Amino acid sequence: MLGKCLDNVRKTMPLVHNITNYVTVNDVANVLLACGGSPIMSDEPEDVQDITAICGGLNINIGTLNKRTIEGMFVAGHKANELGHVVLLDPVGAGASALRTNTAVKLMEELHLDVIRGNISEIKTLALGSGTTKGVDADVADAVTEENLDEAVVFAKEFAKTSGSIAAITGAIDLVSDGQECYVIRNGRPEMGKITGTGCQLSGLMTAFLVANPDQKLKAAAAAVCAMGLAGEIGWNLMQEGDGNSAYRNRIIDAIYHMDMETLDKGAKYEVR
Amino acid sequence: MLGKCLDNVRKTMPLVHNITNYVTVNDVANVLLACGGSPIMSDEPEDVQDITAICGGLNINIGTLNKRTIEGMFVAGHKANELGHVVLLDPVGAGASALRTNTAVKLMEELHLDVIRGNISEIKTLALGSGTTKGVDADVADAVTEENLDEAVVFAKEFAKTSGSIAAITGAIDLVSDGQECYVIRNGRPEMGKITGTGCQLSGLMTAFLVANPDQKLKAAAAAVCAMGLAGEIGWNLMQEGDGNSAYRNRIIDAIYHMDMETLDKGAKYEVR
Amino acid sequence: MLGKCLDNVRKTMPLVHNITNYVTVNDVANVLLACGGSPIMSDEPEDVQDITAICGGLNINIGTLNKRTIEGMFVAGHKANELGHVVLLDPVGAGASALRTNTAVKLMEELHLDVIRGNISEIKTLALGSGTTKGVDADVADAVTEENLDEAVVFAKEFAKTSGSIAAITGAIDLVSDGQECYVIRNGRPEMGKITGTGCQLSGLMTAFLVANPDQKLKAAAAAVCAMGLAGEIGWNLMQEGDGNSAYRNRIIDAIYHMDMETLDKGAKYEVR
Repeated sequence: MLGKCLDNVRKTMPLVHNITNYVTVNDVANVLLACGGSPIMSDEPEDVQDITAICGGLNINIGTLNKRTIEGMFVAGHKANELGHVVLLDPVGAGASALRTNTAVKLMEELHLDVIRGNISEIKTLALGSGTTKGVDADVADAVTEENLDEAVVFAKEFAKTSGSIAAITGAIDLVSDGQECYVIRNGRPEMGKITGTGCQLSGLMTAFLVANPDQKLKAAAAAVCAMGLAGEIGWNLMQEGDGNSAYRNRIIDAIYHMDMETLDKGAKYEVR
Repeated sequence: MLGKCLDNVRKTMPLVHNITNYVTVNDVANVLLACGGSPIMSDEPEDVQDITAICGGLNINIGTLNKRTIEGMFVAGHKANELGHVVLLDPVGAGASALRTNTAVKLMEELHLDVIRGNISEIKTLALGSGTTKGVDADVADAVTEENLDEAVVFAKEFAKTSGSIAAITGAIDLVSDGQECYVIRNGRPEMGKITGTGCQLSGLMTAFLVANPDQKLKAAAAAVCAMGLAGEIGWNLMQEGDGNSAYRNRIIDAIYHMDMETLDKGAKYEVR
Repeated sequence: MLGKCLDNVRKTMPLVHNITNYVTVNDVANVLLACGGSPIMSDEPEDVQDITAICGGLNINIGTLNKRTIEGMFVAGHKANELGHVVLLDPVGAGASALRTNTAVKLMEELHLDVIRGNISEIKTLALGSGTTKGVDADVADAVTEENLDEAVVFAKEFAKTSGSIAAITGAIDLVSDGQECYVIRNGRPEMGKITGTGCQLSGLMTAFLVANPDQKLKAAAAAVCAMGLAGEIGWNLMQEGDGNSAYRNRIIDAIYHMDMETLDKGAKYEVR
């Protein structure tokens, strides 16, 4: 069951190296601590090899990339690959600018990525491998719905196969596939989209889950998606008068903090296709 | 009425490009989501043209400027001007260092800025166009009070006329002028000054308001100031035992999240001179 | 008594220049405001001299150092020394990478540092002056406990003597020494370790305390440690159903916001050896 994957995080306390955007970095650090992992942030090319070497996984998020941090991503990624560490890519805004698209594509080409986690528009951009310009939020026209779900599952599997990475495509319905199987996940709440960085947080969390569950990475990725969505449901139920997106942000991290194996097993809503 | 300006933000969901400091950037993102807008952060010169092109407005905040991000501000600003987008400047710390003053002055010279939003000390520095060294908070001696209000209104109008930008001078009493009219606003609470970044948040919010109300920018700027101050009042009324400046920060963003047209119309405290 | 040191912060409102990591910078700013100080962040080499000149103290934290900000640390540090300002070093991750260790060692060599505040593993690394590779959290094997306390006190005194700086070594038991005396402090809660940045916050707070108490820096450093730990205890007592590490973060800053002289005097748990 998926709960066991969370349990393994709490037991092994994986150290995760994050090269991530400065918008949501504090929340990424706190959610990693909440799930039982331990975060380190470092983006200076001269620093990242040493830092990634003492970690179990590397979370690369291009949300506020610059030329120096892009170099850091490649240097750290190569080192992490060399050491057999988990590497995750969160291609924030791929499709919104040429630099973002090209950086994400090049990271895919040069590195072995265990997971690529993004919204459907970002992943579609990467599937095409070129820079059509959209936004950083998923395009409504792209959204995975009950109506186009079959097609979306095929796309997720295909992208996973072609890229050689687990595809974690998150939105109202989440898809997590390794090319063979596809988890279809229905946890979460639409209000999570009104908080900055729930996707970034999920990427940090997912990296920790994979590090702690090296023999079942697909299940670990799916467990992280369920845990984040379930935290959104639990946090929502604790909302009080006047609470809005800022309180909700705290409540979601707090729900991860308190989540145990049984809660996750009971609350996870998924099917495998 | 001002409430309509908020309503237009919620209806049009303006995308705002922020080049802003890393201290308060998360709060800026969350307040933009709270009001119905959508934030994107990007400061790499090679990235900003593409990003600003898909947005409706650009919020430039020099709070933790560096040489790379300064270049990004100019590149993005020129592109935004070329596309006729809303551009706002928040000259954080103008007067506190030569680099900040000179950068702000040069941005004023090279770009068309729809709004310049700062505290009275920053705006006075820009009015002089030179680098007298003060702090990042407004100098007490400069503060707009009931006693010097007439004089301050004249200054605000004059600065707006000379600069060609709407002047939004915020403090205990806020002044928003386009050179002809001046909104004198008395929303807000002094405790907001004990939270880092309420000014930065207002700049993000204001950019969204202007994008959503292109035909009445002065009113939109004033509406944003009233909304932020009113959120400070509403948030304060929800404070519970033990709550301090950190809880207050969350409550203000949450108050923006829940604010509707009627609440803003009823709560806005302003006169036009 | 230590409470007086807090009172002096509230009375003098010291301006603190922070060159600190982008992970926890917002919390550092808010805790500085909470204690009665005022934060400014600036890391651009061309900006830091002017900024540090208008401040009373400089807080250098190497948590997400890069080559540009390292240069900023040295430029600001030399200027602050020249002006006789308080300078504090938080050597985040010293021992975890060569760049971090070498940067911290070089800052110690080139600057007069009033305080070096870190966990026991970081301080041990600096005592050796070389780059053994550990993590950013204290190594369990290094932890100060009741069993090895005598030895740890000797180490703290020795490090303070050798370095010429007050040593503030924080963990389950905190040690603050100027080489002659050593405060042994038992405030705080283990759950504080599940929040990112309580150490960074303490470094900001401590800088403000030293600026406000120039004639009793050792006592001021100890008072800051007690205040932070006590805030952790007070905040914990206010935790409600569902609250986790994210709520706790807010509650600790809020406890600093409400803390007065009497509360600190009554709640501080320390002995001087």
